[in-house]
Amino acid sequence: MSANGFLKPCSNVVKSFCRAYKASGIPELTQVRHNVKRGNYGTLDGKDVAFFESIVGRNHMLQEDLQGYNVDFLRAVRGNSQLVLKPNSSEQVSAILKYCNERKLAICPQGGNTGLVGGSVPVCDEIVLSLTHLDKILHIDEITGIASCEAGCILENLDLKARESGLVVPLDLGAKSSCHIGGNVSTNAGGLRVLRYGNLHGSVLGVEAILANGEILDLMSDFKKDNTGYHLKHLFIGSEGTLGVVTKVSILCAPQPQAQHVAFLGVPSFDDVLKNFRNARQFLGEILSSCELVDAGSLDCSVSHFKLNSPIEGYPFYMLIETSGSNAEHDMEKFNRFLENGIEKGQILDGTITGEVSKMREIWKLRELVSVALAEDGFCFKYDISLPLREFYHIVEVMKERVGHLANRVCGYGHLGDSNLHLNITCPEFTPEIYKCVEPFVYEFTSQLKGSISAEHGIGFLKRNYLKYSKSPAAIEKMREMKQLLDPNGILNPYKVLN
Amino acid sequence: MSANGFLKPCSNVVKSFCRAYKASGIPELTQVRHNVKRGNYGTLDGKDVAFFESIVGRNHMLQEDLQGYNVDFLRAVRGNSQLVLKPNSSEQVSAILKYCNERKLAICPQGGNTGLVGGSVPVCDEIVLSLTHLDKILHIDEITGIASCEAGCILENLDLKARESGLVVPLDLGAKSSCHIGGNVSTNAGGLRVLRYGNLHGSVLGVEAILANGEILDLMSDFKKDNTGYHLKHLFIGSEGTLGVVTKVSILCAPQPQAQHVAFLGVPSFDDVLKNFRNARQFLGEILSSCELVDAGSLDCSVSHFKLNSPIEGYPFYMLIETSGSNAEHDMEKFNRFLENGIEKGQILDGTITGEVSKMREIWKLRELVSVALAEDGFCFKYDISLPLREFYHIVEVMKERVGHLANRVCGYGHLGDSNLHLNITCPEFTPEIYKCVEPFVYEFTSQLKGSISAEHGIGFLKRNYLKYSKSPAAIEKMREMKQLLDPNGILNPYKVLN
Repeated sequence: MSANGFLKPCSNVVKSFCRAYKASGIPELTQVRHNVKRGNYGTLDGKDVAFFESIVGRNHMLQEDLQGYNVDFLRAVRGNSQLVLKPNSSEQVSAILKYCNERKLAICPQGGNTGLVGGSVPVCDEIVLSLTHLDKILHIDEITGIASCEAGCILENLDLKARESGLVVPLDLGAKSSCHIGGNVSTNAGGLRVLRYGNLHGSVLGVEAILANGEILDLMSDFKKDNTGYHLKHLFIGSEGTLGVVTKVSILCAPQPQAQHVAFLGVPSFDDVLKNFRNARQFLGEILSSCELVDAGSLDCSVSHFKLNSPIEGYPFYMLIETSGSNAEHDMEKFNRFLENGIEKGQILDGTITGEVSKMREIWKLRELVSVALAEDGFCFKYDISLPLREFYHIVEVMKERVGHLANRVCGYGHLGDSNLHLNITCPEFTPEIYKCVEPFVYEFTSQLKGSISAEHGIGFLKRNYLKYSKSPAAIEKMREMKQLLDPNGILNPYKVLN
Repeated sequence: MSANGFLKPCSNVVKSFCRAYKASGIPELTQVRHNVKRGNYGTLDGKDVAFFESIVGRNHMLQEDLQGYNVDFLRAVRGNSQLVLKPNSSEQVSAILKYCNERKLAICPQGGNTGLVGGSVPVCDEIVLSLTHLDKILHIDEITGIASCEAGCILENLDLKARESGLVVPLDLGAKSSCHIGGNVSTNAGGLRVLRYGNLHGSVLGVEAILANGEILDLMSDFKKDNTGYHLKHLFIGSEGTLGVVTKVSILCAPQPQAQHVAFLGVPSFDDVLKNFRNARQFLGEILSSCELVDAGSLDCSVSHFKLNSPIEGYPFYMLIETSGSNAEHDMEKFNRFLENGIEKGQILDGTITGEVSKMREIWKLRELVSVALAEDGFCFKYDISLPLREFYHIVEVMKERVGHLANRVCGYGHLGDSNLHLNITCPEFTPEIYKCVEPFVYEFTSQLKGSISAEHGIGFLKRNYLKYSKSPAAIEKMREMKQLLDPNGILNPYKVLN
């Protein structure tokens, strides 16, 4: 396998299918559909526009054809912004925010607009602050592995540049060809390699954030260790642009793996899925990089919808296990021992393993296209939850009982290695009857197990009423106080996270 | 190697030497030596004591023989507390803090009291809140690797328990046999395995913290992914007990390595040290677990002071490289390739490698005892800084020039793999002349390179005047606002971090 030939998840495939999926219509205005009362913000006038023009220049602002900025990736929400600003420096962002704060004009910071909870588009008429022109890669240190860049840098671009120095960005997700690193940080994006590289709170070493009053807060660092005072950068990781606008990021990259292998396995029961995961941690240890679950219903849906060929079929559960290591021979030997053990114990019934890039892509497709296939299987209720592994699949079985004949499918798949389940329920069309079967039951069930009602997608606009299922009143109150402290006029991404 | 026979750093050796070192006397009262004005706090009276007795019981409070709680590990500072409370539940901690907040009584939370910057003992007469009786291990999940425990649990106890489930706590430091996990979290402790497992912001999944007003903030989580609102737990990681008292911790453990190897190498120049580090990342990849630097002066000091045998001598630089993997044969093969490459290129001149526990311990001693040996080489100025690797050793050479004949030794050693240098300057005795040569130059030099003036030890009491060298005025102001928000009466660990 050549150094440049490593497996990249089939993002282009997903993207083209998603485009087709998305073309199904323009959603109703969010303010109307969700009956949102506009906050007590200023209203954009000619003087404001003239001021912004003096800051960013005519060519870096838009007042027409704003649909791409007002509508989200899933076409679930639509804002009514009349102005998009595209600053190209932290100082420009600062000047814009300072002005908006004084004028009480609401702002929606926007990266690649790939979010799934309506966090990256306006709810009412907020000004869109697009970070797209803040796209410079500032520095990559090939010895320490530390990369720094501006927030609008596209994840894939940073990763490709890092690979030139023998490194990989420790974050990988389907949207990598269009999402921004600043958006990833602001949403604490998870994705396919959290099992291996951990989350962004561990790998992001520094940020620069612009506060609501325009103050530039320089929390950049090129060091893994810096114990000088409160670790404020974490306030901006995962707060979805509501506490400040991330403009720069410093991130610790990992050495580029020299070998990858992917196995797709048929497993007789969920109990055996757990046994296989435990064995994978033990046998594959430091080379394990993904451990994904696909249940029979999920695989059936992606295979039939996209006419894919699955190398195995007829099992209740499938596991996709990936390794990334520095020696193909060693990795394969470890993988074989893991497989032999599982087969011998009857925990693995059948499967395939490959180190060939094209074949690995084909296997990843089976997993990655599940989400899109289910979304096209009629109306789809989608949940992204963290649950204790021992109870991980139970909710799928319970939900099947609850919705019965009302549903086409009730499926579970996702990042088993991170305890992160994607629960999907599809039905011929939305009805209040099935809705009542599903919600708030999903949230109550998750809450009772102290799980997370949003494992990796965030809260944004669409989940703001469900926060209480995962956070105590005391914690939510502290969040409010934090918001009040950092953004007293509430101009930053209003109507999101907290309601 | 048996499952229980894995290398544990020679903490007992270090400890006994440290004990001898520490017995040199009791320091002057901090308030006197550092001319600290007591804050406007209430003064403990009989009614207060009666109240605390009603909460924790007579057997869980001390009013005599408090020296062990008032004096720090290095005997650098001494407080004058008249009361030590040892609550055994979060509710008791809550009741104590609520009362103290109302009465404006200052509190010093204390874990294992192993801190190195005077953060864990009182400065004036603060009540010591010892977490030592909150020592329960709550749960260890052998499938996910997630462990939860109370804050007073000793790091080594948690690690031993985790090993019974085939796991290791992703944190290892010399003080592991006495430090508390709550103290580790509160100081964002670094140590010997940050290179492999990252810092605590990545591996701590949840905390419970008691706020100054007694409110119990439950931010516990058993999940790697939880994107529901602001990630407040990070405010309590590394804020040294000034924003809240950590009472519970949930942490992600790693699979226990099945094999370890340690090499000790002689290297001709610092440039070659860097080349070797880069090669170690490439050749050893996922199994690299430590990359430490010891310069000639540091090794000479530990060898001669403790009459150790170094397997190699006569080189300007030494590197200790450790691997932890899941297959001894594979690991050794990778290690050999790394060594052959380095020797061939002249970047490694000589060395030794071993997988035997006793021999690995001997090698680790050469590195771990440097700190103690230097501290006994007369008066010792000690600095714990992060610097860019390309400039990492330059400060040692510059400092040698500056202090000239005034110093016995100017040495550099530390966690090269984390860009973390321990710079030590020893001299026959403290003189204002050498002090002026050294400070504030060290901090200015570090600041100019945007380094960290406290990489892993924290700010505590002793470094509070130097915070400005690593953090901007805007960042320090935000820290003050955060402190004001969470602890408006300033009762939590006063005189620390912020001055």
